[in-house]
Amino acid sequence: MTPIELALEEARAAAARGEVPVGAVVTDAAGAVLARAGNEVEARHDASAHAELLALRAAAARRGSKFLADCTLTVTLEPCPMCAQAASFFRLRRVAFGAYDPKGGGVEHGARVLAAPSCHHRPEVVGGLRESDCAALLRGFFAARR
Amino acid sequence: MTPIELALEEARAAAARGEVPVGAVVTDAAGAVLARAGNEVEARHDASAHAELLALRAAAARRGSKFLADCTLTVTLEPCPMCAQAASFFRLRRVAFGAYDPKGGGVEHGARVLAAPSCHHRPEVVGGLRESDCAALLRGFFAARR
Repeated sequence: MTPIELALEEARAAAARGEVPVGAVVTDAAGAVLARAGNEVEARHDASAHAELLALRAAAARRGSKFLADCTLTVTLEPCPMCAQAASFFRLRRVAFGAYDPKGGGVEHGARVLAAPSCHHRPEVVGGLRESDCAALLRGFFAARR
Repeated sequence: MTPIELALEEARAAAARGEVPVGAVVTDAAGAVLARAGNEVEARHDASAHAELLALRAAAARRGSKFLADCTLTVTLEPCPMCAQAASFFRLRRVAFGAYDPKGGGVEHGARVLAAPSCHHRPEVVGGLRESDCAALLRGFFAARR
């Protein structure tokens, strides 16, 4: 499976747990998976337990390094400002995401934290991977809750 | 001790561990301390282990709640975009900080994440508490490392 497919798998598992369906995977330069996670905001009672932050922390813990300079974060939804800034702090090489998020995103929308002149490290950014699948998963989740 | 004094104590303890000296405290509406933390980026090998995020997570874990709507985060340095967005996600009532951070701050500087139209919850913000003490601690730390 490709990283975005793994991330989609994590997002589906998150939905099954009643979490907003977002999943994330951290891969190294060779494409090996260092960490994968889904949203755990509800399970952990932690508003910061986004899939991206969990996957980044797990990858860094596995490496025993605070930086992940050769790594790619692949996530089903455009990261929010918190997670985008975290991607910069971990000095990621690349952030790849699925669905764009005009309301909550912080990369291509909103605060655009990676574009701020004060942002010291800007990972390469690619959006739109498996966009319709990633977006459909979120739409279906919220439609079912209304 | 006031919250900013407790935060300064955490910042000094962080410096003693070789961490960038930033400390944070979460207090409830009555002023009781729910959690306190200093930077642990080096100790945890985690670029996201900022004092604010650690204190917020610990406070929410103690409450068993993903929201901290009656709470104040008091921190010695203007929060970065990651921590500012986290403060919004936890729906804090108030963010109070010591030194302003023109280079890395994300509240009054840089991406100003809480001012973005897409920011759903904007805590009240107060800056400049014990500003010179908070700034001197940081300056001293970096001067000693040069």
